[in-house]
Amino acid sequence: VSARENRDLIGRLQQIVGGEHVLTSRDILGSYETDWTRRFSGSALAAVRPASTAEVAAVLAACNEAGVAVVPQGGNTGLVGGSVPRAGEVVLSTRRLAQVESFDPVARELTAGAGVTAAQANALAAAHGLQLGVDLASRDSATVGGMAATNAGGIHVVRHGMMRSQVIGLEAVLANGGVVDRMFGVVRDNTGYDLANLLVGSEGTLGVITRVRLRLVAVERRRAVALLGLDSVEEAIGVALAARNGLPGLNAAEIFFAPGMELVCSAMGLTPPFEKRFPVYVLIEAAGAGEVAEGLAAFLEGSARAAASAFATDARDCARLWAYRERHTEAINTAGVPHKLDIALPLGRMAEFVREVGPVVRSLDPGGREILFGHVADGNLHVNLLGFEPDDERPDDAILRMVAGLGGSISAEHGVGVAKRQWLHLTRSAADIAAMAAIKRALDPRGILNPGVIIPA
Amino acid sequence: VSARENRDLIGRLQQIVGGEHVLTSRDILGSYETDWTRRFSGSALAAVRPASTAEVAAVLAACNEAGVAVVPQGGNTGLVGGSVPRAGEVVLSTRRLAQVESFDPVARELTAGAGVTAAQANALAAAHGLQLGVDLASRDSATVGGMAATNAGGIHVVRHGMMRSQVIGLEAVLANGGVVDRMFGVVRDNTGYDLANLLVGSEGTLGVITRVRLRLVAVERRRAVALLGLDSVEEAIGVALAARNGLPGLNAAEIFFAPGMELVCSAMGLTPPFEKRFPVYVLIEAAGAGEVAEGLAAFLEGSARAAASAFATDARDCARLWAYRERHTEAINTAGVPHKLDIALPLGRMAEFVREVGPVVRSLDPGGREILFGHVADGNLHVNLLGFEPDDERPDDAILRMVAGLGGSISAEHGVGVAKRQWLHLTRSAADIAAMAAIKRALDPRGILNPGVIIPA
Repeated sequence: VSARENRDLIGRLQQIVGGEHVLTSRDILGSYETDWTRRFSGSALAAVRPASTAEVAAVLAACNEAGVAVVPQGGNTGLVGGSVPRAGEVVLSTRRLAQVESFDPVARELTAGAGVTAAQANALAAAHGLQLGVDLASRDSATVGGMAATNAGGIHVVRHGMMRSQVIGLEAVLANGGVVDRMFGVVRDNTGYDLANLLVGSEGTLGVITRVRLRLVAVERRRAVALLGLDSVEEAIGVALAARNGLPGLNAAEIFFAPGMELVCSAMGLTPPFEKRFPVYVLIEAAGAGEVAEGLAAFLEGSARAAASAFATDARDCARLWAYRERHTEAINTAGVPHKLDIALPLGRMAEFVREVGPVVRSLDPGGREILFGHVADGNLHVNLLGFEPDDERPDDAILRMVAGLGGSISAEHGVGVAKRQWLHLTRSAADIAAMAAIKRALDPRGILNPGVIIPA
Repeated sequence: VSARENRDLIGRLQQIVGGEHVLTSRDILGSYETDWTRRFSGSALAAVRPASTAEVAAVLAACNEAGVAVVPQGGNTGLVGGSVPRAGEVVLSTRRLAQVESFDPVARELTAGAGVTAAQANALAAAHGLQLGVDLASRDSATVGGMAATNAGGIHVVRHGMMRSQVIGLEAVLANGGVVDRMFGVVRDNTGYDLANLLVGSEGTLGVITRVRLRLVAVERRRAVALLGLDSVEEAIGVALAARNGLPGLNAAEIFFAPGMELVCSAMGLTPPFEKRFPVYVLIEAAGAGEVAEGLAAFLEGSARAAASAFATDARDCARLWAYRERHTEAINTAGVPHKLDIALPLGRMAEFVREVGPVVRSLDPGGREILFGHVADGNLHVNLLGFEPDDERPDDAILRMVAGLGGSISAEHGVGVAKRQWLHLTRSAADIAAMAAIKRALDPRGILNPGVIIPA
């Protein structure tokens, strides 16, 4: 595409969305060109900010005709480089699709433009005792459209499922500008292929999600948290499965380990919870309208006896226990720039992984260290590696191969983006990748939607 | 394809699966050529019964190369003609993929070949107090693969979701014989496009599902059922939403109407539940391990006061109340051969639909009548039309147009098959249908997989 053609395209985009919503100045473009991790960045031809589905459709049709690639961008809080430009693409920001169109507190659902943030949706829902089923640390910036496009997860997946389970309808614009309206619903609508679920998690490569219809869940009035010190991963899994099967109102089941606990306590100045050091810690949260504390206490007495445990029911004490888990990311950042992997394992193989990951890391660099934490009932671990250069792919490669060898997932919740595409073949057969590539070509024959994301070139 | 080429293909199929598993005799083929409704039938070139994923792959590769179409068939209990041949296809029966490969009562999941029936899976799970999350009247014949391929629903969707929500892993063979292995899981695995959810509900047009990994749910020990006589659809929806939001252990919320109640009572010889006739009836079932009867009683007292209600907690009384709802299909069949539509409506439009459906039916034939029943919390109604010739498409057309006009779904749980494809455009935009057709061509370029199903020619 020549400079002249680029200028022509920008002129067309200005006609579609208005001059002030086509950004081309380098100083303004900066925030669209770099994601929040600052690990991924590239330069954009322009950032365009459509305000309606029709404008998104016209923008995509114009870019498709011009053969200029488009990077859809919501809150730009992804972790795999899928929402920033790489080589002069047009960034299509969904942030002006920011209207909540309807909110039904009785049916417990909300219909919103893709650019509404999780925090905005929750603020509205909270007035009726409701919230989104998915919660994320990036809630103030993350958009509901971006959360759908990346199938976001978080700590409440054990209760409410991933973002996929929250999306009961969606609208998207395809590469050619065609609009797919699946707003009626996903649950009771067996009318042809489930394009909604195909678009969820497709990371902007098959279409731009413009509207979502989301289910809401109750904000539970009562909460109780237990932190357990345990001797093994097997015990932790046993506790988590027992909680999933028998603890009313299970809201979270998180796992972390001695090195993380020690780093959090030292870096954040927290007092360790127990006198003794344990190799494994599990945090269980129950929430509900009924006898939540009693239920959790009975569970601890019956199914989850631990050598050491702490128990909290008021907000302050709950937050104090949660801090050991939640401040991991912050504490890790004080110790260096980590490589972050987001993997899942069959529960029966998780102990093996935890045992072997240290030796593998040290075999690459004796000074390397790993801090793990995650969502134990789902087999999902966040692997943070310290002591490696940012561009050193060896530890990522070694660990993702180990995960694949154990029958796990190389990306449990963050997606593939550009960061993981080279490892896609580890867990996807040639037939599977060929099928994904064929679908990509079928829906986006000119390859303008987020090229380079998910599917390796 | 010439007779000679057909003979060559049959020879190859015999080599792949063994001679006795390639059926070509007309008398044996009969049961593969007609579905259980007897509404749909056609003739097959052969029925082939592979016993492994590798055999399915070889069968599809051979048929693909020969350019001979394949109709995948599980229990053959569909309602839209998607599992029987139409014009000399090869029927690929999955019934020999009948092994339960693993069963984990603690993780509450089961991995099974596609040909395992729902009843077989439930029998195994029941020994550990577990069951599939989806239950159907056709449970003795319906296979788990077919239930996944058609995204089956049923009465427990309000609690556990459709079959899509039960499938935590899946393996399928594509048209070219390539194998897609997504057995690791669907929940915490954001590694590329969600082919598993694309295959679920694709009715055998994109691949043949060969294995599934399913979540299981607890068989609840205690059950309580209430039958309410109500004055309006609005009241019924109010009760259903209140139950969904606040009744612990809500297991089913069914709706039916005076004409159905009267037909069931007269045709099945049941005593009406109440002295007074009500226009609308709602059946609520709660199930759980705790104080289920007390919870349902408190709910009826607080949120669902009705002029008339019946309450049951022991198995026999529960069955007696369920009979008014469950025996609808049987009672309708005594009155004629119904046209069966399976639609869903936005809850806010359901009353309007119920009001208008009768006049529409009578405008086509003064002797026509409609019996409705369904799953009220999901907006799903089964519309049974009596008094029309089997081939008369006018009532189907009129009602599906009405549903589309109200923003509903023309197929809530049965799928599209061949029966609904001509109405697909009522609720799917041209861009949407073009996207589905493009995906079909991408994964099945020669169009051998269940041609004519879902996508109009």
